[in-house]
Amino acid sequence: MKVILLSAGRSLRAKPIEDKNFLKFCGKTLVEHQVEALKKAGFNDILVVGGAHNKDKLKEILKPFKVQICEQKNLDEGMAGAVLAVEKAVGNEDIFIVSGNDVVDEKAYELMEKASKTTGDSFLLAYQVSSYFPGGYLKLQKDRVIGITEKPGEGNEPSNLINIVLHVHKNPKELFAELKKVSSKKDDRYEVALDNLMKERIFKSVKYTGFWQPIKYPWHVLDLTNHFLSGLKRKISKTAQIAKTATINGNVVIESGAKIYDNAVVQGPAYIGKNTVVANNALVRESIIGDNSVVGFSTEIARSFIGDDCWFHTNYVGDTVMGNNCSFGSGAVCANLRLDEKEIGDSKRNKLGPIFGENIRVGVQTSIMPGVRIGSNTMITSGLIIAEDIEPNKFVKGKTTLEIKDNKAILDKSARAKMKGKL
Amino acid sequence: MKVILLSAGRSLRAKPIEDKNFLKFCGKTLVEHQVEALKKAGFNDILVVGGAHNKDKLKEILKPFKVQICEQKNLDEGMAGAVLAVEKAVGNEDIFIVSGNDVVDEKAYELMEKASKTTGDSFLLAYQVSSYFPGGYLKLQKDRVIGITEKPGEGNEPSNLINIVLHVHKNPKELFAELKKVSSKKDDRYEVALDNLMKERIFKSVKYTGFWQPIKYPWHVLDLTNHFLSGLKRKISKTAQIAKTATINGNVVIESGAKIYDNAVVQGPAYIGKNTVVANNALVRESIIGDNSVVGFSTEIARSFIGDDCWFHTNYVGDTVMGNNCSFGSGAVCANLRLDEKEIGDSKRNKLGPIFGENIRVGVQTSIMPGVRIGSNTMITSGLIIAEDIEPNKFVKGKTTLEIKDNKAILDKSARAKMKGKL
Amino acid sequence: MKVILLSAGRSLRAKPIEDKNFLKFCGKTLVEHQVEALKKAGFNDILVVGGAHNKDKLKEILKPFKVQICEQKNLDEGMAGAVLAVEKAVGNEDIFIVSGNDVVDEKAYELMEKASKTTGDSFLLAYQVSSYFPGGYLKLQKDRVIGITEKPGEGNEPSNLINIVLHVHKNPKELFAELKKVSSKKDDRYEVALDNLMKERIFKSVKYTGFWQPIKYPWHVLDLTNHFLSGLKRKISKTAQIAKTATINGNVVIESGAKIYDNAVVQGPAYIGKNTVVANNALVRESIIGDNSVVGFSTEIARSFIGDDCWFHTNYVGDTVMGNNCSFGSGAVCANLRLDEKEIGDSKRNKLGPIFGENIRVGVQTSIMPGVRIGSNTMITSGLIIAEDIEPNKFVKGKTTLEIKDNKAILDKSARAKMKGKL
Repeated sequence: MKVILLSAGRSLRAKPIEDKNFLKFCGKTLVEHQVEALKKAGFNDILVVGGAHNKDKLKEILKPFKVQICEQKNLDEGMAGAVLAVEKAVGNEDIFIVSGNDVVDEKAYELMEKASKTTGDSFLLAYQVSSYFPGGYLKLQKDRVIGITEKPGEGNEPSNLINIVLHVHKNPKELFAELKKVSSKKDDRYEVALDNLMKERIFKSVKYTGFWQPIKYPWHVLDLTNHFLSGLKRKISKTAQIAKTATINGNVVIESGAKIYDNAVVQGPAYIGKNTVVANNALVRESIIGDNSVVGFSTEIARSFIGDDCWFHTNYVGDTVMGNNCSFGSGAVCANLRLDEKEIGDSKRNKLGPIFGENIRVGVQTSIMPGVRIGSNTMITSGLIIAEDIEPNKFVKGKTTLEIKDNKAILDKSARAKMKGKL
Repeated sequence: MKVILLSAGRSLRAKPIEDKNFLKFCGKTLVEHQVEALKKAGFNDILVVGGAHNKDKLKEILKPFKVQICEQKNLDEGMAGAVLAVEKAVGNEDIFIVSGNDVVDEKAYELMEKASKTTGDSFLLAYQVSSYFPGGYLKLQKDRVIGITEKPGEGNEPSNLINIVLHVHKNPKELFAELKKVSSKKDDRYEVALDNLMKERIFKSVKYTGFWQPIKYPWHVLDLTNHFLSGLKRKISKTAQIAKTATINGNVVIESGAKIYDNAVVQGPAYIGKNTVVANNALVRESIIGDNSVVGFSTEIARSFIGDDCWFHTNYVGDTVMGNNCSFGSGAVCANLRLDEKEIGDSKRNKLGPIFGENIRVGVQTSIMPGVRIGSNTMITSGLIIAEDIEPNKFVKGKTTLEIKDNKAILDKSARAKMKGKL
Repeated sequence: MKVILLSAGRSLRAKPIEDKNFLKFCGKTLVEHQVEALKKAGFNDILVVGGAHNKDKLKEILKPFKVQICEQKNLDEGMAGAVLAVEKAVGNEDIFIVSGNDVVDEKAYELMEKASKTTGDSFLLAYQVSSYFPGGYLKLQKDRVIGITEKPGEGNEPSNLINIVLHVHKNPKELFAELKKVSSKKDDRYEVALDNLMKERIFKSVKYTGFWQPIKYPWHVLDLTNHFLSGLKRKISKTAQIAKTATINGNVVIESGAKIYDNAVVQGPAYIGKNTVVANNALVRESIIGDNSVVGFSTEIARSFIGDDCWFHTNYVGDTVMGNNCSFGSGAVCANLRLDEKEIGDSKRNKLGPIFGENIRVGVQTSIMPGVRIGSNTMITSGLIIAEDIEPNKFVKGKTTLEIKDNKAILDKSARAKMKGKL
C-alpha cells in the first residue's frame, strides 16, 4: 500500500503561521512526526505531495525517511488536485491518502492498515464524537458508508462519526477517473467523486476514538503543543549547562548545548531546544521552545509554542504561537486574557495570546492583545498597544507628543533618607 | 454591661473601599477582630448596630460570637441615630458605646471596664497625644470632663487628651432622652447631648496611651495592616505547599492550601491567605494577601493590603489597598512615589499606591498613579496611565493611533551572531 | 620631572555626563585612578590643572595624593590655555603633560619615564594602530617626529602611530614661549606650537600598544567600565550581607555595608559599591554600581556604569551610562537595541542604552530609547517613550486622553474557576 501524504496546502486560515508542515514540535517538524508515525505503523512506501513553495524543504527534511516527493502544480485545485498529482506515480497498489493537516495517534494508521485487509473498496477513518463538531458526518447503512453530510448542524447528524482524511482506496485508477469527471472548479471535487463512487463501491468506516487534532486555525498549534508535550519523558542532555540554583521540575527535555542560568525554573512538561538559553529568573512552563532561542532575564513563557532563534527579555508570553526568529524588547507583553474573561475571537478559548509569523521585532514595552495576528517580517516600535491584526512586512509606529517644560520640582533629600531607612 | 458596637456607617471618606467592617486583616474581618477583643476583655453582651446594607453579612460573619444585631434604619442620622436604634434592646444596664471605626488594643476595653466600676455616670476613653491631632479635646475640671472642644487648632488645646468613642454610660435611658431633645438634623447631635448631660452628671476620662487607629481615610487601612502584621507569629499550615527553593523569612503566616512556588520569597511580617498562590520569583513583603489570590510570576507586593480573589502577573504593587476580586494584566504597576518624592494628596505619606474597590480589572502595562482611587466594578484597558480617580462601574480606554508603513529595514544576521557570542 | 595632568576640560561631546574626572570606576574616581597610576609609575611631583567648576572637588578628592592643584582661568583657551596656566608653577624641570581624557596602562607612564632619559627634547606617546582611527598621525623621519597630521583619512596615514597626549618636554620655558606666539583664538594652538618646535628640536615617538581609551563620547565610559572590571579580583566585604540564596559568580567586588537579598544574582565581573542593595531576584552583570544605590526587585543591570545613589525597581538597564542620584519607577526600561539591530547613532555599537546626567527621575513604565541623552535635573513622567535627547532641568509629560464609559461587561465566575483549575 502506498501512502499519499498531502502536504501542499497553504493554510490560509492558519495565517500568519508559515507552512504548518515545518512547525517544529519537540525538535521535529510536524511532517517528520507524521512520516515517522506512518513508518512505525508499518507503512514504508510513502509519497509526499508538496507545492512549489515547499517541495525542496520537504525533500531536505524528509531525506532520512526515504520518501518520494511529488509536486502539485496548481494549488488552487485543492485536495483533488493533490490526489491527481500523484496519478503517474501510482500503479495498481492500494493507496492510503493521509491529510497533512490532521494529527492522529499511530494507532489510527494501524487501524487503517488492518481494515484495508478486510473486504471493501475504500476505507474512511471515522472519528467518534460525543458532542456536535462542525465536520463531515458519515451516513451509514449497516457498516457501509453511503454518504458524507458536511456540517449538518447540531441535532441533524446522520451518525456520531466524523470523516477524517485518512482514506484507503483499493482502486486508485477508478478514483483518478472519477475525480476527472468532476469540474476542477468545484471546491468539494474530491468529496463529490467519493459520493459518486459510494453508489457502486463498498466504502467502510474505521472507527477511531484516540487523539485527533486538525490544524485549521493557529490556536490548534497550542493543542498540538499540549499533545506533544504530554508524551515527553524527562531527558537532559549531557552537554546542557544547568546552573546549580536552576530548578527543573517534571517531564522536561533539554537539548544539547542549552544553558539554564541561576534561579531559572523549567516547569514540565516543557521542551528546550538546542543551544537555547533560559536566563536568570526566567520561567518556562508547559511550552516548547525551539533551538538557538534566548528566554532572557525574568521572562515567563507559559503554555506556548516558540520557534527557533526567538529572543525574549523580561517578557510575559502566555498561550502564544510564535514562528522562527522573533525578538521582543524588555517589558513587551503577549496578553492572553480579555478584561471580561470571555472567549477570544472564534477560538473557544478564554486564554489565547497573539499569533506571530516569522522574522518579527517588537519594541520594549509594547503589548500585543489576545488573539491578534502579526504577519512575518514586521517590526513594531516601542510602547504601543497592538489590538488589531498586522499584515506581513509592515513597520508600525505610534504617535507620541511630549510636553517639555522647565523642571521646577526640588528634590528633598530628607524624604529619600527616610525611605532608605525603611529598606 | 451591654456593648453597643457601631458598625452601620458608610465610610464616604474611605471611598472606594467598600464596608470597612468587612476588610479582612490576617484572615479575620475587622468587625470580628473587634468583637473578639471585646470578648477577651470580658464583654459578653454585645449588640452590633448595622444598616440595611450590611446587617445580613454582619449576622453571618458574627454568628460564632453570639452577638445581637440591630438595624439603624436612617443612616443619615449618624451616630446619634445608631445609639437611638438600640433603645428598645437596652434595659437598665450600663451601656458601652464602641465605635466600629476606631481600632484599639484589648487593653483599652479593659480600662473602660475597670473605670465603669468606679464612681461617676459616664466614662470616655481619653487618648493622650504628644503633638496636635485634629480631634475632639477633653476639657477637664480636676478628673471630671466638663466639655469637648472639636479641632481647637494647635496651641489652643484644653488638654492633651482626645475623645475616642469608647464611652460607658450608666444611665442609658437618660442618654436616649437627651438625644431626643436635640434636633435630628444636627450633625453633632450625640456630642450636644453629651455636653448637656455633663452639666449635671459626672463624666470621667479614662486615660489611654496604647495603639489607636481610626479608619477615616483609605490609607488608614495600611496603618492597620501594619498593626495586625506586627502581632503576627510565624505559622505555616501543614497543608500549604512550599517549594524547596522558596524562601520564607521572619514572622509569616501561610494558611491552609496555599502554595509557594520555586524561588518565591515571602519576607515577614506577611500573611498569605487560604489557597493563595505565590508563584515563581514573586516577592511578598510586609503585606496581607487574602484567600484564593494569585501573586503571579515575578510580582512584588510590598507594604500592601490585598483582598480575596485578587490576581497578579508580573506587577509591582506597593503601599496599595485593594478590595476583593481585582485582577491585573502583566506589567501593570501600582505606582507609589511621586517623581518629586513629596507627600501624596493629604495622606501625609510619601509612599502611597492607588486605592481599589472590588471587582476591578486592569489591563497589561497599565499604571495607576500614587493615591488614585479606582471604584468597584471598573475595567481599565491596556497601556494606560491613570492619574485621576475613576468612579465605580466604568470602562476606561485610551486612544492609540498606529502608523503602519511598509517595513524597509533589513535584518543583518551578522549583528545577531555577534550579540549571541556575548551572551 | 613634573607631571601636568590636564583635568579642566568641560567634555561637551560627552554630554550629559557631568565632569568625567569624577566618574567613579570601582570605587575610585577617574582622576584618582590616573594619579594613582602615575604615582605607581614613579611620578611624585604632580600638578593637576582644573577649572573654576571643579578645582575644589579635585583638591578634596586628591588630598591623599598630595598633588598641587592649579586653575585654568579661561577654559575657552583649551589645552594650550591649560598648559600656560601652569607656567608659574614650573621651573626648569622636565614636564610631562598628561591628558585627563586618555586612559592608559601604568606601563605607558613608565615608557615615557624611560624615554625621557634618552636623548631628545620632547617625547610623544605613539599608539600603534592596526586599522584606521580618526586621530592625529605622527609623521616620522627615522625615529624623529617631524609633524602630526590630523585625521588624514584611511589610506593617507603617514604612519600607523597616533599621537596620544602623554608628552614629555625637556624645555618647558621654550614651549610656553612658543605657545604665546600662536594666536589664542586658534583651536589647535598647542599643536601649532609643537609643529613649530619640531623644526628645531628633536621630538621622539614612544611606541605603545597596551590599553588606551579616550573618553570623548559618553559610550566610552562603557569601554572604561569594561576595562576596570576586567582587572577586578573577587573580594566580598565582611560587613556586606549576602542572603543564603543569593548567587555571586566570578570576579565580583562587594563593598562594605552592601546587601544582596534572596535570589539575587551578581554575575562577574561586577562591582557593587558601599551600602548598595541588590534586592530580591535582581541581576547585576558586567556592571559597576556606585555607593548607596538600590537595585530593586527583579531589575537587571547589564554591561552598565551606574553612579551613586541610583534607585531601580523592576527595570531593565543595559549598556547604559548613568550619573549619580537617578531614580527609575517600576517597569521603566533603558532600551539598548534598535529593532533593525543596526549601530546606534555614531557610537559604532549595536548595543547602547541611554546616557543619563545626574539627579534624574523617570516615572513608571517609561522607556528611553537607545543612545538617547537625558540631561541632569530632569524629570520624566510615567508611561512615555523618550526617543529624543532631553536637555537638563526639564520636566517631561505626555498627553493621554482617557475615554471613560459605563462598564457593561459582566464577569462570569465560571471562566475564572476554570482558569484557577489550571494553575
